[in-house]
This record gives sequence, structure tokens and C-alpha cells, in this order.
Amino acid sequence: MRFTKIHGTGNDFVLITDLNNDFVGKEKDLAEKICHRRFGVGADGVIFVRNSSIADTQMVIYNSDGSYAEMCGNGIRCFAKYVYDNKIVRKDEITIETGDGIKIAYLNLENEKVTGVKIDMGTYTFEPSKIPVNSNDKVIDFELKENDKIYKVTTLLLGVPHTIIFGELDNIDVNEGKAVEFNELYPARTNVNFCEVVHPGFVKVKTWERGAGPTMACGTGSCAAVVVANMFGKTDNVVKVSVPGGEMIIELTEDKRVFMTGPAVTVFEGEM
Amino acid sequence: MRFTKIHGTGNDFVLITDLNNDFVGKEKDLAEKICHRRFGVGADGVIFVRNSSIADTQMVIYNSDGSYAEMCGNGIRCFAKYVYDNKIVRKDEITIETGDGIKIAYLNLENEKVTGVKIDMGTYTFEPSKIPVNSNDKVIDFELKENDKIYKVTTLLLGVPHTIIFGELDNIDVNEGKAVEFNELYPARTNVNFCEVVHPGFVKVKTWERGAGPTMACGTGSCAAVVVANMFGKTDNVVKVSVPGGEMIIELTEDKRVFMTGPAVTVFEGEM
Repeated sequence: MRFTKIHGTGNDFVLITDLNNDFVGKEKDLAEKICHRRFGVGADGVIFVRNSSIADTQMVIYNSDGSYAEMCGNGIRCFAKYVYDNKIVRKDEITIETGDGIKIAYLNLENEKVTGVKIDMGTYTFEPSKIPVNSNDKVIDFELKENDKIYKVTTLLLGVPHTIIFGELDNIDVNEGKAVEFNELYPARTNVNFCEVVHPGFVKVKTWERGAGPTMACGTGSCAAVVVANMFGKTDNVVKVSVPGGEMIIELTEDKRVFMTGPAVTVFEGEM
Repeated sequence: MRFTKIHGTGNDFVLITDLNNDFVGKEKDLAEKICHRRFGVGADGVIFVRNSSIADTQMVIYNSDGSYAEMCGNGIRCFAKYVYDNKIVRKDEITIETGDGIKIAYLNLENEKVTGVKIDMGTYTFEPSKIPVNSNDKVIDFELKENDKIYKVTTLLLGVPHTIIFGELDNIDVNEGKAVEFNELYPARTNVNFCEVVHPGFVKVKTWERGAGPTMACGTGSCAAVVVANMFGKTDNVVKVSVPGGEMIIELTEDKRVFMTGPAVTVFEGEM
């Protein structure tokens, strides 16, 4: 079986062309085996490229633990690079069927190779019942006690529940996010994004991912951090975000949509 | 650059043919890049295959942190499989130049493929000054206090300093090894191998590796555990050892040599 490993800001995936649906029903087992970092290729997830009847192509993601993922912001950039570089879809604007609906990827091309991908990440809401949070009011600059500290938290839904905490990242241990994730305010738990605004065009973000811990990069978390920083007047509408695994550009539109541009880098091709 | 990833009981390596010494002087940088589990191929180390003027072939190992390793019991099995399968050395008994002298690998072959490799791991000593330990007496069944417990420890040199602690592995957290590693008894620190004797032909071993923490498999640690278990009359001379990453067979000879037989499994071949 041939495969390609691609990473997006440190979030790494094994890409497999499966246009004949050969691996349908075998995804869970394959993902667990392939993603093992010693006995397998090693990755955060496996992405299968399949045909779609409603879009240019279809992305099917399984996580390293064998669970299905509807959508992944870093993964879809890797997917877009793969289908273009492998001539499966040869357009610079690709419609992609995902478990979370059809997404559009806009490719940055250099010498016929994909160097970056912009993704329309959709919109967001602060509505308590939709996030969900155990509160009648929107959770904005709310004082939440955990780890013997008081955090000023703001929580929104952007793909998944995201809580934003501003501060200097040098003074924060991202593992503090665990207690926040499990605070009773969050019935479905929450990602926790620590955000430092360096200047209006540049922020740093470190994410504690719900159920997973510290990550190299959280695409939706970076988007959520910029949405909140912008709402508080701390940033512009177009912001560079530095995460442990690299950099992304987040753009906010007037109709409350969020676009994320980030890298997708082929690490190697292999056969197993 | 073409490469092959091979693991031996969960200890994984990227093997690179370097018969023209193209990578001399670049090993450290290459190892750091290639071994990164997200931005690179991902491995515990990189092994270069080079020509030798004193043996059939030469193994040069660099760890994932870029440091040089004289020798590695799991790595040399992977090396032996690689040079045979790739027709670099086509013998079932291969002499291998390493940073720790010439080692001999004996291949188990099935259908012209290597399924397992036996390595002469050399000999051992309990001599305090050679291990080294801060003690005039040999450290055998010595009561050592750490973690609010008293451990009965036995320490020997087998490649590196190894301390053996017997007990039921279900009741031991391998992370307890850290405090033992740094006990003042050990000026050069020590690997810590927790060993449970299931019956005279079968033991289980979990290793806390000096400077590295819990490992899937420690080749020399498994040998050291069997040496001590045998000395105490707990096992036979030929013992199956179960480690988190798989199984090995350890054989003790009358002239105090130790032979280790274990698997070497090709995971995938790649190009980067």
C-alpha cells in the first residue's frame, strides 16, 4: 500500500488514495495500526481520499485511536495539497465533502506545487445553549476559578467548544487547561486556548485540546482566539497566529465567517 | 533519499545505506530531523550502513536527540536484517563493526527473509569500580530507599550500568525508576529494570532507561535481568523475556557470555 505523510503546522497525517473504496469498513483498524508511532508509520490520523457525488472530492478522517473525525482544520489543508499534487483534483479552488458538510479549499501554488491552503472555516456562536455552557448568559470575560487561580474566560462554539484565556504564554503552563476543560461550566467540556496578543496583527496561541492535551496546532482554536481578540479590540481582522507547530493566517469577514490559511508540507512517501 | 524503517521489539530505527560516506559529518542534523515524529519520519534513532575494513560491515547509530551511540542491542538486530534483506551482506553470520567493537549477528531465515537475529552481547561484571557504584562491596540484594519504599537492588555493568529490582510488575510503576537512577549510589546513574519471574523459563521486564525514561524494550536490560535472576537460582540458562514491545530469548553460557535473540520487523520503505 502506497501512502504519503503530510503535516500541517505539526499535526501529521497519512494520506491514502481510496477511490475504489477498498478500505471501507477497515478504516478503524488501519488507522490504529498505521498511526502507531513505533509499530506503524506514525501520525495523528489517516485521511482517505474518496470520490464524491456532491463535491470535487471527499475527505474521510480517522484519528490515531481509531475514532472517526467529521472534520479537521489542519487535516483538510494536507488533504487539499495531496489531491492537487497527485493530480486527483487539478483546480486551485477545491470543494471537499467532509463529515461536517462541504468545505472549500483555496490553494497557494508555487511551481505547480501547493505551499499553503486557505480554508473557509465557517462561522461561530457565543449562544450558551449551542456551545454548550451551563449559563444563561454568554460566557464573555467570565471569572472562572481553577488551579488556585482566577482565569478570565470567553467561550464560543467554532467547530467545537473553545475557551479563550489571554495572558503572557511564558507565564502559563498549557497543562493548566485540563482543569478548565473539566470545569462544571462545560457540560461537553471545552478546548482551552491560551492567547498572547503581541500586536494587532500577531498573536501567539497554545491549545489544550479536549480529550487530547497539549497540541502542536489547533486550527479551530487559532480561529476562535482571533475572533475573541478582535471582538475585544485587541487585533485587526487579518492576524498571523504562531502556534507551537508553525504559523497560520486567520481572516475575519464582516459576515462573521473565518478563513484560515496555513502550510501543508509533504514529509515523505512510503510503501508498506 | 531512500530509507527503511525497522523496529526491534518496539525500538524503531530509520536505516540508510551510506556506503560512499555521503552523510559523514551530517549525522547529527539528519538524525534530529529524520527522528522527529511529526516533522520527520519518526524513530528512536538513525542507523547508517557503512563499509568496514575489519568486519563484514559497519553500523553507525545516532539517537533521536542527535547524540552518537556506540551500540544498541535492538538496533543491531534491525541493522543485520537490513544489510541481509538489501543484499549488502549475504551471510547468515555477519560480523559488524560498532563503536563498541566487532559484534556477531546470527540470522534466523525464512524464505530468504530475516525473521529474527541472535546477537552475542558480550559479558558483564558486578565489580563496583567498573559499573560504577559508590560502594566497596558488590551491590547484590542491597536495600535502597527511594520513593518512600525499600527496594532490594542488584547492580551490574552489561554495556551500561543496570540495576535489577524483582517484584510483580502489576504493582510497580516503571516511573519509580527515576528516583533510583539518580540515587547517590550511582555516580554515572543507572538503568532500572523491574523484573517479574513467571517461571524458570519466562520473565517479564520493564525498563526505566537512564536519561530516557520508560522504554518499549531494553536489550541489554533484558540480558542483565536474566543474568541476575539466574544467579539467584530463579531461572534456567535459556529464558524468554517479555517486554512492553515484544519478546526476546536470552541465553547464558558457561563462560559468562550473554546471547540475545529477538525480532526485527520492517515497517515500511520510504523516500524523502
